[in-house]
Amino acid sequence: MPKNIQVQLANRPTGPVEESNFRIVELDVPKPAHGEILVKNLWLSLDPYMRGRMSAAKSYAKGVEIGEVMTGGTVGQVVESNHPKFKVGDHVVGSLGWQLYAVSHGEGLTVIDSNVVPLSAYLGVCGMPGATAWIGLLEYCAPKAGETVLVSAASGAVGGVVGQLAKLQGCRAVGIAGGPKKCAYAIKELGFDACVDYKAGNLIDDLKAACPNGVDNLFENVGGEVMDAAFRVLNPFSRVALCGLISDYSATEPYGTKMIRSLLVNRVRLQGFIVFDRQDLYFRAISQLVKLVSQRKIKYHETVAEGIHSAPKAFMGLLKGDNLGKQLVKLS
Amino acid sequence: MPKNIQVQLANRPTGPVEESNFRIVELDVPKPAHGEILVKNLWLSLDPYMRGRMSAAKSYAKGVEIGEVMTGGTVGQVVESNHPKFKVGDHVVGSLGWQLYAVSHGEGLTVIDSNVVPLSAYLGVCGMPGATAWIGLLEYCAPKAGETVLVSAASGAVGGVVGQLAKLQGCRAVGIAGGPKKCAYAIKELGFDACVDYKAGNLIDDLKAACPNGVDNLFENVGGEVMDAAFRVLNPFSRVALCGLISDYSATEPYGTKMIRSLLVNRVRLQGFIVFDRQDLYFRAISQLVKLVSQRKIKYHETVAEGIHSAPKAFMGLLKGDNLGKQLVKLS
Repeated sequence: MPKNIQVQLANRPTGPVEESNFRIVELDVPKPAHGEILVKNLWLSLDPYMRGRMSAAKSYAKGVEIGEVMTGGTVGQVVESNHPKFKVGDHVVGSLGWQLYAVSHGEGLTVIDSNVVPLSAYLGVCGMPGATAWIGLLEYCAPKAGETVLVSAASGAVGGVVGQLAKLQGCRAVGIAGGPKKCAYAIKELGFDACVDYKAGNLIDDLKAACPNGVDNLFENVGGEVMDAAFRVLNPFSRVALCGLISDYSATEPYGTKMIRSLLVNRVRLQGFIVFDRQDLYFRAISQLVKLVSQRKIKYHETVAEGIHSAPKAFMGLLKGDNLGKQLVKLS
Repeated sequence: MPKNIQVQLANRPTGPVEESNFRIVELDVPKPAHGEILVKNLWLSLDPYMRGRMSAAKSYAKGVEIGEVMTGGTVGQVVESNHPKFKVGDHVVGSLGWQLYAVSHGEGLTVIDSNVVPLSAYLGVCGMPGATAWIGLLEYCAPKAGETVLVSAASGAVGGVVGQLAKLQGCRAVGIAGGPKKCAYAIKELGFDACVDYKAGNLIDDLKAACPNGVDNLFENVGGEVMDAAFRVLNPFSRVALCGLISDYSATEPYGTKMIRSLLVNRVRLQGFIVFDRQDLYFRAISQLVKLVSQRKIKYHETVAEGIHSAPKAFMGLLKGDNLGKQLVKLS
């Protein structure tokens, strides 16, 4: 008789996340009631936004309560169905959390086709991170051919798609990433024109060299010193899509951004955004990304942790930048 | 025989502006050539942006060179004309600098009517500061009736117009200003609903009390700690018009803004802007403001320094916030 295994929030981190912030519990597999389905999760997505959900600080979404299962995107398979729209064997993508099984009314679940792109891609390049890249770049930055697009966390699940979409728009794509391995990956595998290693200790000068015509579009995932340096190379009338601030998420004291003046003198438009606000664009973004991936016009990489018990450690690694591309947990 | 008196940039300030940064020189009154006019300046405008022009740092406009006359808006009267579009006696508004006389080809000069609003108003409420308020608020914030508009430097030439336009839009207008006198002026004279004294030492809590429904539109003139506090009370999907950063202009080290996270989680749109980029809106803004002022629907206050020699000290006072409303120098 299979058991459900669940990763719950045990207590809230102050500063960096630790394994002791999580509790792994074994539960009976729940029974789907009328109108419900039982899903066996196959893949769990780990994403930086989850750090915010662990915190009690006000954010755009309600945090996870102590003792609740951690929020997380999943791909799974329907194993029991009392719902007319789902049949046993269907693959579904949604947000069923850090656990092996879940019951659902079906809301927020989408049936996906594993013949077009692999199932796991629906959590990355053809999922929430891909749609984030698509909406932030094409809707909020709206780059024109010939412009320069700069993206931080360039080797991550979002940043890698941003750079490739920028190339498809006819732009110069420049990344910022941590370490020579990630930078080489962005350039050689993903086709970025340049990638600056922020750990090399020469960030501002390296950015200037990598962006000889300045930056017209900044897709910001990191914040902190990296963003402050990027603000220095912004061109007049440039656009900033503020997508994430991963360097701040685990900081006990937020970094003080000094280059606000650049936003004024360069008449910059900065837009903070959350992908889920744009349901009007989400499925269009996903369907275009599925097509581009199936045509091999967009590439991706996955870092896979094995088994639900590895999720906390893999998440801690993600927040430190240990992953390359999309961080997943293979559940089954 | 009258002489021209000119205030030139003697050297660049590091930190606060000092009188020794200026040189006052006496020159012959220039002669207008064919196609030129000679203007006798009557009023000089002092504005925070001039601090930027004194600096060698990259900004949106070329700085003043050492030994050049300081840049500045002026209202004057044509005393000689070799130009078909201007006749002797015409009043003109433009940017003829910190001096008593100037020759001009007429470019950038507009003939104004002293019968509708007083001449000096064309440098403030019906001039560049007024247009800045109009464009920043109505074009970039675009507030809806019932929303809250927060504006820093609320008793200044720009801020005072922002608050009154906000009221005309059906919004709650909340100001931030330095000291009880300025706050009382904003509320009692200009009709703000509330005004928070940032010098009172309780800025964040006072802002929360003054904005019980949060802030939907922030018109930012100040930057630094004041802006950081304002970021804390922003509502989801709020707009920030970034107009100025007066607290940073004289700082040797820029303030580090900590609440960037608020721009992300609240999905804020922030737009840095300079009024001169919007020539498409400038004259519409001015003509509406002239009408509103002539109908007494918008009020204003002027702080007037007497004589060209008083300009440096009056400018230093402006940067410290000594003025109430528009800071002018009466030249004649």
